[in-house]
Amino acid sequence: MSADRPRTLAAMMDRGDVFATDCPSRAVLKRITSSWGLLVLVALQGGTRRFSELRRRVNGVSERMLAQTLQQLEAHQLVTRRSLPVVPPHVEYSLTPLGHEAAAKVEDLVEWIQAHLGDLMPVALDEAAE
Amino acid sequence: MSADRPRTLAAMMDRGDVFATDCPSRAVLKRITSSWGLLVLVALQGGTRRFSELRRRVNGVSERMLAQTLQQLEAHQLVTRRSLPVVPPHVEYSLTPLGHEAAAKVEDLVEWIQAHLGDLMPVALDEAAE
Repeated sequence: MSADRPRTLAAMMDRGDVFATDCPSRAVLKRITSSWGLLVLVALQGGTRRFSELRRRVNGVSERMLAQTLQQLEAHQLVTRRSLPVVPPHVEYSLTPLGHEAAAKVEDLVEWIQAHLGDLMPVALDEAAE
Repeated sequence: MSADRPRTLAAMMDRGDVFATDCPSRAVLKRITSSWGLLVLVALQGGTRRFSELRRRVNGVSERMLAQTLQQLEAHQLVTRRSLPVVPPHVEYSLTPLGHEAAAKVEDLVEWIQAHLGDLMPVALDEAAE
């Protein structure tokens, strides 16, 4: 329909367009900004963490959701997983250089929300209407 | 359990903590970073938009989801809605000053994803494993 920019896959791979339904950047955006994805990225900014440490830090995440989130972040090359050959098994996760960049952007947003929480609290729209 | 920071609601309102399950900042984070919330914030950066314009810009969103997303952003005081008393009805949406700040942070993340899309494409984890 609109032809204001190239819509070929090659062009989109060169530079994504989240406003195009069929652009893969939308899927990436969705993964990075999933509720747990955001928190895991920020939690890993402090350095390498074991699975159990992450689970404690990211309050409220289930074991299954954390494993799935880490797997997705790994598939997007934002996180690396290292499994040490010890008993009991010891698995640790770190940010890749790309993951550090993403985490910095995400943290910026998270910091802003935390700092402005008072203003951002939901108001009943009836009251807000003049 | 962990007492490394205050967990009272007053303390959290002063400054949120997304890592605390019961902190309201988590809900705000979830709303702002919902798939459509992100795109609507960025789409409104260009200025005031009518509902139908937003729907076209945010490719693939249903009328219902767009209405719901706008309502949530309005409740969080990020978006204002203006209804003009004309026939047919004309409703337009703009970012509040707070919304502009949030949108700038979000756009920063979106821009980064778009620019790094090639590196962020999912890899099959079997291949990625050494």
